[in-house]
Amino acid sequence: MTGSAASARHGEGPLAIIAGGGSLPSTVAAAARAQGRRVVLFPIRGSAEPDRLGDVPHHWIGAAQFGRFLRLAASEGCRDVVMIGSVLRPTITTHLPDLYTLRLVPRFLKLFRGGDDRLLSGIGAILEERGFRLLGAHEVAPEILMPEGALARGRPSAQDLADIARGLELLSAMGRFDVGQAVVVANGRVLAVEAAEGTDGMLDHVALLRREGRIRVHSGMGVLVKAPKPGQNLRIDLPSIGPQTVERAAAAGLAGIAVAAGRAIVAEPERLTLAADRTGLFVMGVRDEGVAG
Amino acid sequence: MTGSAASARHGEGPLAIIAGGGSLPSTVAAAARAQGRRVVLFPIRGSAEPDRLGDVPHHWIGAAQFGRFLRLAASEGCRDVVMIGSVLRPTITTHLPDLYTLRLVPRFLKLFRGGDDRLLSGIGAILEERGFRLLGAHEVAPEILMPEGALARGRPSAQDLADIARGLELLSAMGRFDVGQAVVVANGRVLAVEAAEGTDGMLDHVALLRREGRIRVHSGMGVLVKAPKPGQNLRIDLPSIGPQTVERAAAAGLAGIAVAAGRAIVAEPERLTLAADRTGLFVMGVRDEGVAG
Repeated sequence: MTGSAASARHGEGPLAIIAGGGSLPSTVAAAARAQGRRVVLFPIRGSAEPDRLGDVPHHWIGAAQFGRFLRLAASEGCRDVVMIGSVLRPTITTHLPDLYTLRLVPRFLKLFRGGDDRLLSGIGAILEERGFRLLGAHEVAPEILMPEGALARGRPSAQDLADIARGLELLSAMGRFDVGQAVVVANGRVLAVEAAEGTDGMLDHVALLRREGRIRVHSGMGVLVKAPKPGQNLRIDLPSIGPQTVERAAAAGLAGIAVAAGRAIVAEPERLTLAADRTGLFVMGVRDEGVAG
Repeated sequence: MTGSAASARHGEGPLAIIAGGGSLPSTVAAAARAQGRRVVLFPIRGSAEPDRLGDVPHHWIGAAQFGRFLRLAASEGCRDVVMIGSVLRPTITTHLPDLYTLRLVPRFLKLFRGGDDRLLSGIGAILEERGFRLLGAHEVAPEILMPEGALARGRPSAQDLADIARGLELLSAMGRFDVGQAVVVANGRVLAVEAAEGTDGMLDHVALLRREGRIRVHSGMGVLVKAPKPGQNLRIDLPSIGPQTVERAAAAGLAGIAVAAGRAIVAEPERLTLAADRTGLFVMGVRDEGVAG
């Protein structure tokens, strides 16, 4: 382990986790505490789930209460910050901003004009300016990363492997446009490209197209391919899959899921593996570094 | 006019038009007849609309009755063939194939494994092998092509122009993957990428995401950008827009539509312009040759 990685894992003082929805915030909190580190959760109202907080000390914050977070995190003695979990893209109109956030409005509005990359990078930059250190969840808890190879019993066919390669190439070619992190490829044909709808929305849309008879590829063919964009800031925006990804991919009639090994997060791997074995889907961690852009 | 263009427009013998749905087949037929050429329509059952055939001589064919088409077209003395109009991707199971088509099944199955490009190019190659000459609808009726500049009263804003440039770049970058011919970009953000759902399906999906509050870009922003892929065979697969494209783009809350000038078809331009002026959308023909890939 290098010195910087050791300092990221063991850090100084308590770890602040800005927590969105899903199981990942508590997984990361448990991993940090298992390393003997104190953790303070900052669950985001409307996104984080109260019954997932367990016994971890926490302060609820609004999605537009950046000032409140900075003040509380400083008073808790936190310097390291992790942002993890699903957050609905916040709007000024649906969340009450605090004064500090209001002062940042012009800057946020500018960030909102870009894609997710710019928004998230901008939040990271503001944290750094205020003396915090933004860490990737995987730096605190490397065990949440997708391993290379199969998670469940299913294995991709030769056609599936060709579809995976094509999907990785397409994601790479689209990378600089800040589109999505996922595509669906079946039998050499691109069925869907993720954009504003997110991965779950894309899979639901593929399921709908199939029910309507608008996809002529047989059920049980096709792969969801998910990988970070080239140059993506892995500290704040790692792609992730969970049990519900498997359920939705199965409902969309796909053969399996391929995810960039070591560069994507697996939420609830045991439940995910059970779902994959029940539905017959394969779930593979694949290397995508060698794919031409 | 060059010699080959003149021969394409005036041709020899009657022109065979394999006709799918929409208004374009009758538009092309009328243009060819206005040039003094005899036309025989081959409307595809289930796709072409009977009340659009007018007084043009015609023979109905099944989508999988390639042999029937070849026999009838030869007996009518046709050598030049145009394929135009919307056709649902046919399946062997939903259309009764004739004997000639059955012999081609292995070849078609291979073509079906690829994207639309491969399927359409394959059909074109089979026509050429049998002694026919496949022409682009725009070679017979150049007046159906999108002109450069605005069709209706609306004009794009500076932000719209930036979105158009981004959309053209993204289409160019995705070109070699045979994905779609259209994207929606709003305020620098890619909202949707067309794949299996087609342009209408993509616009309906954007409208749905907006109704569900999953798109945070204000209504009245964003552009549908549509252009052929680099290297696309313009003889058989020119992108097109029509009045319903404007209606759907308006329902999706977009500001307008930008289409590659001279490399896309406009169906029913008068009705399209009326729809654009009623909904306030701009419809622009733009040059995309200079955009970097």
